[in-house]
Amino acid sequence: MSAAGGSLDDSLDGDIAALSAALLDLCQAKGLRIATAESCTGGGVAAALTDIAGSSAVFERGFVTYSNEAKAELLSVPQDVLARHGAVSEEVARAMVAGTLARAPAELAVAVTGVAGPGGGTAQKPVGLVWFAAARRGAEPISTERRFNPELGRSGIRTASVAEALKLLMELARTG
Amino acid sequence: MSAAGGSLDDSLDGDIAALSAALLDLCQAKGLRIATAESCTGGGVAAALTDIAGSSAVFERGFVTYSNEAKAELLSVPQDVLARHGAVSEEVARAMVAGTLARAPAELAVAVTGVAGPGGGTAQKPVGLVWFAAARRGAEPISTERRFNPELGRSGIRTASVAEALKLLMELARTG
Repeated sequence: MSAAGGSLDDSLDGDIAALSAALLDLCQAKGLRIATAESCTGGGVAAALTDIAGSSAVFERGFVTYSNEAKAELLSVPQDVLARHGAVSEEVARAMVAGTLARAPAELAVAVTGVAGPGGGTAQKPVGLVWFAAARRGAEPISTERRFNPELGRSGIRTASVAEALKLLMELARTG
Repeated sequence: MSAAGGSLDDSLDGDIAALSAALLDLCQAKGLRIATAESCTGGGVAAALTDIAGSSAVFERGFVTYSNEAKAELLSVPQDVLARHGAVSEEVARAMVAGTLARAPAELAVAVTGVAGPGGGTAQKPVGLVWFAAARRGAEPISTERRFNPELGRSGIRTASVAEALKLLMELARTG
């Protein structure tokens, strides 16, 4: 396997650090804890949040459910939903976020599942397609799809996905 | 909270990418899957491995057990071990890795728990103290302590810890 993937966008890395810090501040002020469920970002959202000093007051736990078995076992994503819609789908993203809130003492959760590439893309689900879901406990989840430019490369798509997940959490933290 | 922590060491980042790729190659050749349990690195080991294309053949799942409650619930770390030895201890690192192998269909696991700082240090457990445990299924875990220079800063200690965790996994993947 090659380590020579696309290099991270330094300015986006700065955005991620600033966004993580702002999100943690807001959550701490509102008494909200965060849990994460990640497939294609592979722990990148959790790593971004926990890179900020003091994050333990807000970040509670994270699930890196890379395999379908992990999604089913750790987050109770139904096997038939995985089989019918595929791991990269709105249905699975929403099931992941619901499972996260069921398994973690957190008020906010986000889930990410996508095709980071370079392999694994199809006509219907190309490299760069990423589904996100986020929810505040007791409220309906929100979900959104992004189609990142495949030319960003694997690392670039992952980094852009981390930023998007943080923005969704911020949107939920701001409201209510 | 401030995002102005120590910046990542670019050359260590390169080492981590190369080490991740080599580890994944070796594990794929030997039919070994990897699961991770992370406290102070907060998903950084999982993120490093999954940044490599093709990692889904080897990386199975990861647990980011930032709170003590997460360590107990997700990895069955006994509450009395947490209370007696503290989260940053050899005993907890070993319990985390045992719990990971019990909860994941993987042959190799690594656990990381430490004081990344800048707060949270004590005379006995200063900033920079990190405990690691790794195990191959069916064998006794190995564990090791590192005392990183606090001047590395939070990000630097976390990055150095990710590299150390990957080296431990490599050591176990090579043998047997």
